[in-house]
Amino acid sequence: MQLYSVSQLLKQENKLPEVEVKGWVRTFRANRFVALNDGSTLSNIQCVVDFENTDEALLKRITTGAALHIKGELVESQGKGQTVEILVSELEVLGDSDAEAYPIQPKKHSFEFLRENAHLRTRTNTFSAVMRLRSKLSYAIHKYFNEHGFYYMHTPIITGSDAEGAGEMFKVTKLDVKNPPLDDNGEVDYSKDFFGKETNLTVSGQLEAETYAMSLGKVYTFGPTFRAENSNTSRHLSEFWMIEPEVAFMDLPGNMDLAEDFLKYVLNYILEHNRDDLEFLEQRLINEEKTKPQAERSDMSLIEKLKFVIDNNFKRVSYTEAIDILRNSKPNKKKKFKFPINEWGADLQSEHERFLVEKHFKCPVILFDYPANIKAFYMRLNEDGKTVRAMDILFPGIGEMVGGSQREERLEVLKEKMAALDIPEEELWWYLDLRKYGTAVHSGFGLGFERLVMFVTGMNNIRDVIPYPRTPQNAEF
Amino acid sequence: MQLYSVSQLLKQENKLPEVEVKGWVRTFRANRFVALNDGSTLSNIQCVVDFENTDEALLKRITTGAALHIKGELVESQGKGQTVEILVSELEVLGDSDAEAYPIQPKKHSFEFLRENAHLRTRTNTFSAVMRLRSKLSYAIHKYFNEHGFYYMHTPIITGSDAEGAGEMFKVTKLDVKNPPLDDNGEVDYSKDFFGKETNLTVSGQLEAETYAMSLGKVYTFGPTFRAENSNTSRHLSEFWMIEPEVAFMDLPGNMDLAEDFLKYVLNYILEHNRDDLEFLEQRLINEEKTKPQAERSDMSLIEKLKFVIDNNFKRVSYTEAIDILRNSKPNKKKKFKFPINEWGADLQSEHERFLVEKHFKCPVILFDYPANIKAFYMRLNEDGKTVRAMDILFPGIGEMVGGSQREERLEVLKEKMAALDIPEEELWWYLDLRKYGTAVHSGFGLGFERLVMFVTGMNNIRDVIPYPRTPQNAEF
Repeated sequence: MQLYSVSQLLKQENKLPEVEVKGWVRTFRANRFVALNDGSTLSNIQCVVDFENTDEALLKRITTGAALHIKGELVESQGKGQTVEILVSELEVLGDSDAEAYPIQPKKHSFEFLRENAHLRTRTNTFSAVMRLRSKLSYAIHKYFNEHGFYYMHTPIITGSDAEGAGEMFKVTKLDVKNPPLDDNGEVDYSKDFFGKETNLTVSGQLEAETYAMSLGKVYTFGPTFRAENSNTSRHLSEFWMIEPEVAFMDLPGNMDLAEDFLKYVLNYILEHNRDDLEFLEQRLINEEKTKPQAERSDMSLIEKLKFVIDNNFKRVSYTEAIDILRNSKPNKKKKFKFPINEWGADLQSEHERFLVEKHFKCPVILFDYPANIKAFYMRLNEDGKTVRAMDILFPGIGEMVGGSQREERLEVLKEKMAALDIPEEELWWYLDLRKYGTAVHSGFGLGFERLVMFVTGMNNIRDVIPYPRTPQNAEF
Repeated sequence: MQLYSVSQLLKQENKLPEVEVKGWVRTFRANRFVALNDGSTLSNIQCVVDFENTDEALLKRITTGAALHIKGELVESQGKGQTVEILVSELEVLGDSDAEAYPIQPKKHSFEFLRENAHLRTRTNTFSAVMRLRSKLSYAIHKYFNEHGFYYMHTPIITGSDAEGAGEMFKVTKLDVKNPPLDDNGEVDYSKDFFGKETNLTVSGQLEAETYAMSLGKVYTFGPTFRAENSNTSRHLSEFWMIEPEVAFMDLPGNMDLAEDFLKYVLNYILEHNRDDLEFLEQRLINEEKTKPQAERSDMSLIEKLKFVIDNNFKRVSYTEAIDILRNSKPNKKKKFKFPINEWGADLQSEHERFLVEKHFKCPVILFDYPANIKAFYMRLNEDGKTVRAMDILFPGIGEMVGGSQREERLEVLKEKMAALDIPEEELWWYLDLRKYGTAVHSGFGLGFERLVMFVTGMNNIRDVIPYPRTPQNAEF
């Protein structure tokens, strides 16, 4: 007798006299129909128990969440909703699940409740679909870069630098926090710490990725990054995963081409490989939106949004043009924007980004050439002296999906920028070396992975797209 | 005119009248032959400069490390060592490299020197080959698991638990270390820290991976893990990457099958896809070993070692049998082992593992059923009450490559084990839940990624197989 996964069984086109499957009970109806799931796919396999010839005590142990080992015959299903089912000949309970105590009852649970039971929430359809999609998206990302000649690079997590400039950092230490060693000035003496200096958790692998791009040509990172900001919102995590490609000899238009091609590829891959999970989540969203007033419902379904990105060319618009459009837009004139756009130099908010994508251009948008003073020190200064070769890619529903730039490759300009921001040269001597020895135009971008998973799954809270979210006051599990 | 990578050019079989390439100078010979590398492959493309018709000042700028943009005609090479070369028609220096100051001279550098210049070391053949192999190995790992129905899971990096039990941890904090808040007992009040509790960097994602295996069936992690141990050796890192598959309904023999199949797959993938990098590193090792006395040289070349793993069945031997073999072995009797094997219960050292693999069985070895008291709390206790269903996989040259086990799935036994080790149940309530609700046999293993990269590249120091190593007293870059 052969052990099958539920996914394998559901694909069978012929009857099979002897099959074996192991999984967990999702529901048990009419003392007869077990819906068994093993995570291999969204769907359950229906197992029909011959209840008249089964011990009553055994039947009572078939409860939601119990682990079963089932043997039987795979036949065409007589009922609706499935093509095949198993006529059970042998049933063993591998692990019981107390029906009263088990937190994951066969009913609708709030996402908040499921967050508190994050160790069990992938036992629901919604979260198993989300996490299967998360996994497949990761794979699509690696596959894209591998096929396009990129090298995957593991940039360091613990960093001795605090000049990455992307946000507040967590300290990493082995010191006795109660009695830290002090130096002669009464300051904490980090030279006595594990690494002989103050260390933090990285906020970005970009600077290190640049060092590898300037020798290996095309590289990318895909790893965890951290922000110690006290932002308790549905869009912020203290620990999240980021993808950062970096390419030598590539300018900003090349960077745009890369990002657009990359995003279309991974979304296409998901449409091709995880259709059932997507359709399930699309239906979930439709049901959820039915409870909302018409005005708050989305114009597009989940899959329509993915196709909107795949099928449209990304419109490339300079920041300056975008400001003109926004300043003269209806919502701005009618004072519908929470943050009115009055002048060049303003930082764009999600409402502006979404207006450009969803109302004005009706396609994904790449904004570029931003004011230098709202962007990071390493972005290449344009000849106008006031804008930098930055780009943001804007998606429907979610706003900014990607942020990138051409990097400042000129040693003197970079040094001036660092001096203006009080970034000591000693701190980034190795980064400056790249501009001393064989410097060249190069570019890259960053994509917050959880943002992408939110876009693909339609989940509204970022805590619901990562297995164990870390947020202020929360590091459970 | 089309821009090519060096790798693309070297594969051309026909002459091409107009090609364009960008890269860095490795060497410039006879005022005429530029060896240009762009990281796309180990080899350089030879670019022949018409020095008689080139400005002297420009020729002087063609120095090792300079970034060039070259246009010309791709022709069959007249010289030895390459099949094609470029007759240069246009040459532009994108970025100069001061020949005096540039640290990466065209000569042999010590690995120690290159570690101090880790931001430039992938500009050498050895390190570019190592990092290309590291990247391809990562890809092979993801590919294997994707093809075998596993889901990739990102387990948390910051953990509120210190019960993972694999080693000393780094603290993660936002507290002011100089003036931490104290509670009524004068202890540091971590309830005022960012996460509202004491947090550390993870030493393993296994426990969380188990939660997902018990719903999604087959999962794996591939992420960074940390050890705050003051081990300054060539085999230890404070930050390293680990792969941890975890599978529901799989017992220890299944775990062995999985690990063997997986290891053979990724090594085969590398042999098929990175032959030139492997051959280069193999030759490097041969040259290095020539300087050693005969007795210290390896029996096998680098590629022979990979084939040794791929072509042999892994021999499965119980710990008890292995102790018998070792106790009666020649080196033990002749007191050649640094740690003599006298009795059952001894922890095996690298010298014993290598004896079993290289001398006794002459194939990779899987040792299983270890004494309970030298293994972790979560491993399944055998019926004998003194051994656990653990396994270690031993490779030639390097010793332990994989450590894994069947997990204790019985709630009461697990609780007893935790009590004996003073692990509070409140700490791992969610881990215990897995045994309360639908428990089942499950297993997994851990593979230190850098160990695998060392095995594949033949590098002897673990600091040379990760881009920016973190070790005691060192968090540079």
